[in-house]
Amino acid sequence: MKDSELKFLDHGRVARFATVGADGQPHVVPICYAVADGTAYFTIDEKPKQPDVKALKRIRNLQQNSRAALVVDRYDGDWTRLGWVMLQGEGTVILSGDEHANAQRLLKTRYPQLAGMKIDELPVIAIRIERVISWGNLDTD
Amino acid sequence: MKDSELKFLDHGRVARFATVGADGQPHVVPICYAVADGTAYFTIDEKPKQPDVKALKRIRNLQQNSRAALVVDRYDGDWTRLGWVMLQGEGTVILSGDEHANAQRLLKTRYPQLAGMKIDELPVIAIRIERVISWGNLDTD
Repeated sequence: MKDSELKFLDHGRVARFATVGADGQPHVVPICYAVADGTAYFTIDEKPKQPDVKALKRIRNLQQNSRAALVVDRYDGDWTRLGWVMLQGEGTVILSGDEHANAQRLLKTRYPQLAGMKIDELPVIAIRIERVISWGNLDTD
Repeated sequence: MKDSELKFLDHGRVARFATVGADGQPHVVPICYAVADGTAYFTIDEKPKQPDVKALKRIRNLQQNSRAALVVDRYDGDWTRLGWVMLQGEGTVILSGDEHANAQRLLKTRYPQLAGMKIDELPVIAIRIERVISWGNLDTD
């Protein structure tokens, strides 16, 4: 990944995460993320409708097709400032362990809003970044 | 679609559009859109690397798997204001005709930035909305 791409990802606050159902139907939702060591992380901080958090569609999709993509972009009325970075790779659900704890810590550092939430027990989704595609103006100044 | 969902879509400026490659790999990029008569529209206003605009990955993907999704969301540091609307449906590439012209007109109305661009000859992607999923705070006031 280029420095400008990494910086753009660090600077962004929200990514959109895409998965695919067994029927080939894409699914895309906004998520709050952190990137470290070639992996993008996010946690499930919203209440699913079912009592089982693993019932969330994005998690069920990853169990059937582990391919995932996420994009971080900047929209601006001045279209010379438009830019985006897309990451593609393998998505894994992590329920516990060191990497799980590190990811939750990273996310709490980036998002003070998470600090007051009991996210420690919640699943982390890790996307092992295999491909980076970027477009436009990635200047963060 | 509920009124609150339609209003949220009208109010938003950028959507993220997801398709799937023949290999099952999702692809997701930001787009500027308009919604009318149960269809979401956007045009290709960026320069592809190849001379043929139809070579763009999102178009090639639709030719192999027409399933598409797009999400419009609001991010805010105040997380009680987070909300999103996801649309899922069939994606079609339209190259000419009345619907093509109407979609280009709609997009130019929503985005004054397009007014100065020669988009009339460019493909329009139409997503026939089959399913609407929304979450969170859709209040546009």
